[in-house]
Amino acid sequence: MHRMKLDFNYAMEAFVKGGLDDSALENYREKARMGLSRLLKQVDEDKAGFANLPSQDTSAMKKYAKELSGKFNDLILIGIGGSSLGIETLCNALLPFGYNARNFAQRGASPRVWVADNVDPSKISSILHECEPADTFICVITKSGSTVETAANFNVIYEWLDDGVKDPKKHICTITDEKNGSLRKITDKEEFRSFVVPANVGGIFSVLSTVGLLPAAILGIDIDKLLEGAATVAKDQYEKVITLSSIYMYFMDQGKNINVLMPYSSRLSSFADWYCQLWGESLGKRTDVNGKEILFGSTPVKAVGAIDQHSQVQLFKEGPEDKVVTFIEVLKHEKDKKIMAEYDDYGYLEGHSLGELCNIELLATEAALKNTGKPSVKISIDSLDEFTLGHLFMLWQYVVPVIGLANDIDPFDQPGVEEGKNYAYGLLDKEGYSDMKSKFEEIFVKRDDFII
Amino acid sequence: MHRMKLDFNYAMEAFVKGGLDDSALENYREKARMGLSRLLKQVDEDKAGFANLPSQDTSAMKKYAKELSGKFNDLILIGIGGSSLGIETLCNALLPFGYNARNFAQRGASPRVWVADNVDPSKISSILHECEPADTFICVITKSGSTVETAANFNVIYEWLDDGVKDPKKHICTITDEKNGSLRKITDKEEFRSFVVPANVGGIFSVLSTVGLLPAAILGIDIDKLLEGAATVAKDQYEKVITLSSIYMYFMDQGKNINVLMPYSSRLSSFADWYCQLWGESLGKRTDVNGKEILFGSTPVKAVGAIDQHSQVQLFKEGPEDKVVTFIEVLKHEKDKKIMAEYDDYGYLEGHSLGELCNIELLATEAALKNTGKPSVKISIDSLDEFTLGHLFMLWQYVVPVIGLANDIDPFDQPGVEEGKNYAYGLLDKEGYSDMKSKFEEIFVKRDDFII
Repeated sequence: MHRMKLDFNYAMEAFVKGGLDDSALENYREKARMGLSRLLKQVDEDKAGFANLPSQDTSAMKKYAKELSGKFNDLILIGIGGSSLGIETLCNALLPFGYNARNFAQRGASPRVWVADNVDPSKISSILHECEPADTFICVITKSGSTVETAANFNVIYEWLDDGVKDPKKHICTITDEKNGSLRKITDKEEFRSFVVPANVGGIFSVLSTVGLLPAAILGIDIDKLLEGAATVAKDQYEKVITLSSIYMYFMDQGKNINVLMPYSSRLSSFADWYCQLWGESLGKRTDVNGKEILFGSTPVKAVGAIDQHSQVQLFKEGPEDKVVTFIEVLKHEKDKKIMAEYDDYGYLEGHSLGELCNIELLATEAALKNTGKPSVKISIDSLDEFTLGHLFMLWQYVVPVIGLANDIDPFDQPGVEEGKNYAYGLLDKEGYSDMKSKFEEIFVKRDDFII
Repeated sequence: MHRMKLDFNYAMEAFVKGGLDDSALENYREKARMGLSRLLKQVDEDKAGFANLPSQDTSAMKKYAKELSGKFNDLILIGIGGSSLGIETLCNALLPFGYNARNFAQRGASPRVWVADNVDPSKISSILHECEPADTFICVITKSGSTVETAANFNVIYEWLDDGVKDPKKHICTITDEKNGSLRKITDKEEFRSFVVPANVGGIFSVLSTVGLLPAAILGIDIDKLLEGAATVAKDQYEKVITLSSIYMYFMDQGKNINVLMPYSSRLSSFADWYCQLWGESLGKRTDVNGKEILFGSTPVKAVGAIDQHSQVQLFKEGPEDKVVTFIEVLKHEKDKKIMAEYDDYGYLEGHSLGELCNIELLATEAALKNTGKPSVKISIDSLDEFTLGHLFMLWQYVVPVIGLANDIDPFDQPGVEEGKNYAYGLLDKEGYSDMKSKFEEIFVKRDDFII
């Protein structure tokens, strides 16, 4: 039986000055309940598809993964943002550290995995240098089909593949919208094998769709257990969603504009990146309230314990009172190692284990922050596996839209990225974007004396 | 000839509302000059040792690296924070992506590299699973000699080594203080080969000391070129230090409490982590000014372009006006790849290259932020290599203390991490820390109804 606990003691006035008192907690809970009911209405109306992903049929993905098993040495995933962060999180949490350095036998016939996200030539060159076309399988992942980085990397990598094998089709599948977009058009024309991203699931919320699950299945991850863990939220965890949303909203309203996620596990490092995307893109919005412009949102910050005790905790503890910290505690670390103190100076470590030390450091940091009046909450999971990871994904996939909807913010759009995207199209001389090129040139004026 | 430019157009009122006008620029330059002169005084008094590292003698490190060359398949670095972020930055920037997956011949007889930073059992287990004691060389890196995570990982890894080889001494070197601390004591007793961290170089400022340079030399990185690049700052780049410090100080005083570093290169991802440590630990300080408590500092945020356009730019553009963004632009990307558009829908990419696209995206994002009144500055380097990386390290190693000293903050201490460290010692039952254990228990009170 898995336990997942939310401990919000140190967000409360009873323990931390400026925290929530009982009445603030009740008021913000009320607001969060309103956000949740708005969200559930969207779920009912089939607009917020992420919530229904736990009940999807995974058999086609598992069957396909089985077909591919043992046939390829390398898996290249071409995707960026919502199409890469989810699977990177899954790999970081569920595959061993240094996985790609292992040989085939050690990996149990699963391929190595390479994420071609950035349009960084040295990264792409290195990936292609490592892989052999004949031994490589490629997933191209973009819901819209038009993501420029993915299009560019797809073209470069496809050319490499096409030069190296007779039938590139056998080495590719695409994950994209069912009907719309360039990649769908190309997929249909070339008869690529393909999986569908549900129309009502946005990129940021897509980790538990084909976007995350198909690559995960190819890598031997138990995708059903992920969904099982994710399903717990709607089953009996709304109280956690409401409480966590309330606390975050309260501190945002108190002017704390920074939201830190600090798991104490290197395996959740990418989870924190995933979280930053979910939080930043969903809540960072310009909106109007009664004709007044509001620049909504707070800034997510990633930290990994115990590492960032040596990097950020000085600031968290003694710097400005502008943060709320969320710790994630893994109660039982896998493959824990007892410490035998070889030297007297380190005698105090004797008999403790690395995992125990990691968790002691969390407690110590939590107490030190509390003692300086810096609020925190803590999520504890008993161990880190597919089930608990699925739960963590889904927990925040609820919490973030609840906060947005309770504040009249649409968490499911990203209007703020369009302008930059269109300038880029203009600068690339894409048809139909010459006006954006002109607009860019108009804006992009600089003075030489401000360049040194 | 290397060029490094600082473009601060979009930090200026002339282009971005709320930016610096000429008089603000002059005032803050004055303040920055004062900070710089305080820093240079400390350099003269031999208190801020980082500034003199470019002139250190590297011959012993290079000689030792040569002796080790080709003898080991794996290099395990045991260190955390200042003792790991620097070398991780060097590896990320200067070794190919996926380096550890390459075989020995491909790496040119350099070992694979594993950073044992966190006390995360699954990470340490995976590293030890990958390596063979007989083929492994270990560097233990802690200036103080007492860093608990490093002590714990050293004990665990030493036990593994000792079980696997006859003469562990031949597989170890330490990098620590010349005279003080537990690791120095052990080093002398065991007659380990050892290199010295200069007493006047703090952990956060140690990347260009033995801490970063010895491992780098073992990995075949040109450490003299790194120092050559670093030396340029004191030679003729103080104007950049002053300007950049002025701009950051101005925006901090304007209430912008978030400082974003966004290089457009996956190879500078770890550099942004290194930067966050430097900024957070040096400037996040509680201080008194005329008897009034000041919680100084702003929060560094890492972003990597173009990836985080899909993760953070929505928030940067449409969210609160609480940030200043620093872009890093790499004008010429190595191993650039031309894009041949395979399909009509992607025809607009034809003839462009990945590196060109990456830089176009930077321009587009810069313009889009500017157009919404969000300030930014931009550092451009012509290419990314040892020289320019050394320059970037040193540039911010000057800028950050200048900001601290101009604001009467000591950038070289970290009093805020002591309390947590001492609680951890207490919880581990370390001798002399029983009072901290009691204090922890006193503080660490919780209510069950705040746990769900």
